[in-house]
Amino acid sequence: MDGYLLDVNERRIKHAHKNIDTKVGPMPSYNAPIEDMMFVLGEVLDLSGKLKSWPLHQEFDLETLQEILNQGARFASEVIQPLNQVGDEQGCELEHQTHEVKTPEGFREAYKAFIEGGWTSISCDPLYGGQGLPMVVNQCVYEMLNAANQAWTMYAGLTHGAYECLHTHGTQWQKKTFLPKLTCGEWTGTMCLTEPQCGTDLGLISTKALPQDDGTYALTGQKIFISAGEHDLADNIVHLVLARLPDAPKGSKGISLFLVSKFLVQTNGSLGARNGIFCASLEHKMGIKGSATCQMTLEAATGTLVGEANKGLAAMFVMMNAARIGVGMQSLGLTEVAYQNALLYAKERIQSRSLLGAKDLTRAADSILVHPDVRRLLLTAKAYSEGGRALSLYSAMLMDESVSSPQESVRDLAHRELAFLTPIVKAFLTDNAWISTSACMQVFGGHGYIRDWGVEQFVRDSRINMIYEGTNAIQSLDLLGRKVLGNEAQSLKLFDAQVRSFLEQAQSSEHAQEMQVFIKSLKTLSQRIEQVTGELGFKALQNANEVGAAAVDYLRLLGHFVMGYLWAKMALVAYSKEPGASRATFYEGKIQLAHFYFAKLMPETLALLEQIKSGSASLMDTHSVLGDGV
Amino acid sequence: MDGYLLDVNERRIKHAHKNIDTKVGPMPSYNAPIEDMMFVLGEVLDLSGKLKSWPLHQEFDLETLQEILNQGARFASEVIQPLNQVGDEQGCELEHQTHEVKTPEGFREAYKAFIEGGWTSISCDPLYGGQGLPMVVNQCVYEMLNAANQAWTMYAGLTHGAYECLHTHGTQWQKKTFLPKLTCGEWTGTMCLTEPQCGTDLGLISTKALPQDDGTYALTGQKIFISAGEHDLADNIVHLVLARLPDAPKGSKGISLFLVSKFLVQTNGSLGARNGIFCASLEHKMGIKGSATCQMTLEAATGTLVGEANKGLAAMFVMMNAARIGVGMQSLGLTEVAYQNALLYAKERIQSRSLLGAKDLTRAADSILVHPDVRRLLLTAKAYSEGGRALSLYSAMLMDESVSSPQESVRDLAHRELAFLTPIVKAFLTDNAWISTSACMQVFGGHGYIRDWGVEQFVRDSRINMIYEGTNAIQSLDLLGRKVLGNEAQSLKLFDAQVRSFLEQAQSSEHAQEMQVFIKSLKTLSQRIEQVTGELGFKALQNANEVGAAAVDYLRLLGHFVMGYLWAKMALVAYSKEPGASRATFYEGKIQLAHFYFAKLMPETLALLEQIKSGSASLMDTHSVLGDGV
Repeated sequence: MDGYLLDVNERRIKHAHKNIDTKVGPMPSYNAPIEDMMFVLGEVLDLSGKLKSWPLHQEFDLETLQEILNQGARFASEVIQPLNQVGDEQGCELEHQTHEVKTPEGFREAYKAFIEGGWTSISCDPLYGGQGLPMVVNQCVYEMLNAANQAWTMYAGLTHGAYECLHTHGTQWQKKTFLPKLTCGEWTGTMCLTEPQCGTDLGLISTKALPQDDGTYALTGQKIFISAGEHDLADNIVHLVLARLPDAPKGSKGISLFLVSKFLVQTNGSLGARNGIFCASLEHKMGIKGSATCQMTLEAATGTLVGEANKGLAAMFVMMNAARIGVGMQSLGLTEVAYQNALLYAKERIQSRSLLGAKDLTRAADSILVHPDVRRLLLTAKAYSEGGRALSLYSAMLMDESVSSPQESVRDLAHRELAFLTPIVKAFLTDNAWISTSACMQVFGGHGYIRDWGVEQFVRDSRINMIYEGTNAIQSLDLLGRKVLGNEAQSLKLFDAQVRSFLEQAQSSEHAQEMQVFIKSLKTLSQRIEQVTGELGFKALQNANEVGAAAVDYLRLLGHFVMGYLWAKMALVAYSKEPGASRATFYEGKIQLAHFYFAKLMPETLALLEQIKSGSASLMDTHSVLGDGV
Repeated sequence: MDGYLLDVNERRIKHAHKNIDTKVGPMPSYNAPIEDMMFVLGEVLDLSGKLKSWPLHQEFDLETLQEILNQGARFASEVIQPLNQVGDEQGCELEHQTHEVKTPEGFREAYKAFIEGGWTSISCDPLYGGQGLPMVVNQCVYEMLNAANQAWTMYAGLTHGAYECLHTHGTQWQKKTFLPKLTCGEWTGTMCLTEPQCGTDLGLISTKALPQDDGTYALTGQKIFISAGEHDLADNIVHLVLARLPDAPKGSKGISLFLVSKFLVQTNGSLGARNGIFCASLEHKMGIKGSATCQMTLEAATGTLVGEANKGLAAMFVMMNAARIGVGMQSLGLTEVAYQNALLYAKERIQSRSLLGAKDLTRAADSILVHPDVRRLLLTAKAYSEGGRALSLYSAMLMDESVSSPQESVRDLAHRELAFLTPIVKAFLTDNAWISTSACMQVFGGHGYIRDWGVEQFVRDSRINMIYEGTNAIQSLDLLGRKVLGNEAQSLKLFDAQVRSFLEQAQSSEHAQEMQVFIKSLKTLSQRIEQVTGELGFKALQNANEVGAAAVDYLRLLGHFVMGYLWAKMALVAYSKEPGASRATFYEGKIQLAHFYFAKLMPETLALLEQIKSGSASLMDTHSVLGDGV
């Protein structure tokens, strides 16, 4: 692998010389935040105790996990991070004659190294060749991969979604044939949902699946926005395709899920004929240009049914839910890497003097870190990164608990809490990455707008995360409509009880005084959420549009509640360290950042509450503005 | 011109076929909001009355202005809008041998049509060939040009800045030689401030100017980020360059301004030798790719002094202030055009049913306009667009008043109010465009991320506006530090008195009842601003960092106050129309949008106030996070 790393670095420098007229570009770097990850896993979430209670993972300890993360960090920083700008500049190319897609320079070799390193199989079932590690480890690795190169990481990430779906809903033949190949990464996966006329509303799907005499189906139709739909990284591609049987009921209750592989697989497992599923064109996008976004044409492609007929959406949602947490991790990675590079820039860039007077008389100006607003921009990204990591790793731990706990009641509870948190992880973290990457770009001033520095790519790449796997508005409706109001707020109440229990613990701890600012804010916010949720439940009974009008603001409100709780937890852990203990600066940083979060980011809740309370009228009674009938 | 338009449209279609694999792209369109502009000018700002009171502009009436706007709208929509995506895809190219820059296909021809149409000279001094129209007209035209094609418009926009600067500070020879050429647009202008080591902090400038025997200066140094620094649109380029004389004091008090033209101008006015100022490289940027952003090298280039030695910054600031309003217009244009295209898309796109039940049984789904959050996204852009237009045209009218009023006291007052509003126009409108263009992109779902639709270009183009001409943080410091606290809040108090006087007028009008929601909100906000400003003044005396910590939030707070006031004014005008009057829908739309603004956008002020009050400690006491010394 070292030889390969050398190649990558040479290519990187060559690339810089080719594209930048007079100087080597100031390429971004990435230093995986292993210490922060281990703080969350070990000290905030007590993963060590959890591991012991999970029979499947009892043999793993934190030291082993950390060693895996160290290796993952090296792969992310040294192998795929140097390909991030190359991928953005080159994008993917479609060879129209053969329908083959060429990924950017270096992607293929990096993917080969990735599967050779066993990275695709970390959390997969040992029955199919997986390493059986808990999901939290996989999530940490994916944060690092996404920070280093979101576009490249999508090829592997989508495979994992297909793996999950087949693992749950596949037939024995499908599992035996496809799961080992997806586990080792030799084949990759996709999810084929969207069509030109249907995105959010999957009930409008029109791709047809005709039953054949041999028990297979012939699928015909057009799919768009298929990530990794075609590429040159793997020998075969396993498409999970939503389509409609001839006798299917209309709408979303008539949709079935099919497995359609690029090459048919023969009974002995070897590759057979090319199947009738082709990439017709590639999309030109704002970002994630190294990821092939394909328009796929199915021409009587041979597929096999996954799960039950007409219950395809339910089967697909196994994949979607994991994918939504995955999108949160994409944005978490971008938030962290943008922060790191903006901080490096801020330290080196000197410009103007501190408002308090010159700080560094040895230089012509002070580092821009002396300016309060530069710090605000950086701290925004850092607080959203660390808070987002706590939230997403907590969610990942719930994933593990929901399958690995020996007690059914614990599994159920974890499953419900995860369902409640999933739309928050997806929408809150992706909104925050958009805010954070843009804030980090602002730190660079004019240089931030220049492509060489790489920070504007983080902004562009992050923008898709608010859209795909269900737009953030859809996440909000899922949260407010289904998970809160549709559930008599049971999950919210359980979560709230957990927060209140923590606040009591903090109140009775020896750090009660230092914790007051957090305790008071969270108590007030808890009360306000209870009140506004009750009001919304009442208003929704009279007018369903009240739900749609409030949902987006409501999700961010709950996002701050959840993240504020996690920041308070992190602060209490840090306060609980002995004064003068080793890594005192590390723990002091957590306390400082928690204060920043409560002082400068949580106040958004005041605006959100007011907006929620103002109701739907100012949105709906606007026909004279929008011209949709008076 | 019609023949030219045909060419443009042919090129547009050809372009679409070339770059999009299987279908003609759904290119964005632009329909200039003349009716909204005339509403602000005629009914909200009473421009008709103002024109009569300005001796320089007495011969103009609203009908004449509207006719000019109609023609400008046609130029914007038909000539330069079709070049917007072409410019983004092609960018500019530098020929390294000759140092010449080629602009994208069609830019040169469009610029020729622009100067032939007399568009560069609208508000210029008749003494130099200008048409002597008020600045408000020019601003309306620039909103349209920017909406159609911000990158293209920068070539003309920067020329106007150079014109203003020379008109105020140029010598007789400079005025006589350069102003007619800048007025007719045959030559274009630039401002050369930034150097690699200095952006915000111009005191660090190191370009040298050596006096020559003939009274000229030889300039040597390097400038970066020079928009329109080199291009193929005009015969000559007039650079205004900040540099340092040999005996100059250190820092910002030792900077002088020089005129350096690409080609030297002979005594008879004809072009002479090529001057020693060259484009060394072009920047690759996130957006505005059709605008040439040049690194300029000066090698003993011949220049002449503009204004007094060592007082270059003051002279340059004439240009900067106009440019800051100009940047606000850029973002206003993008906000409007993004809104228009998102609304068109929302009307055509059907997906899911209204939460209240199906609205359109003739189709498989309802238009996405039935969804409250889609409306929220659209209305956000529309409210910021119309509010931004009211604010920027009000500012433009103050520009006119500050030079055209026959009464010195009126001119002075207008000048001071304009100084107060300028940083708000620049920062608030550019932040709002970032919010709005992203909101409009979200309306498109996955299609918004695809380049063909053009909306993601609006997002990318808009991002630079928050950075250049002084970052938005610098605008905020200018507002809070200089214009408010540095001025004992005199300008703020004057503005506040104007708002309160309006509120009294509204309270005593026959529409007092309908206006209550606006009156109450603005009164409360006025009180809160008074209070928080007082607190900040007090805290600033003890710790200057309190200003830097609060400034960005404070600017948005005042932005909402100013825009809220203008929305209330627009609502009162609309309420004052006879029921059943013509264009009742138009006026009803203003009222609906005002309600939306107060219900869904103004609540941000609650968060801003809380953040401001939390002070600087949570930003500054973060050394353990940012690692800048413990």
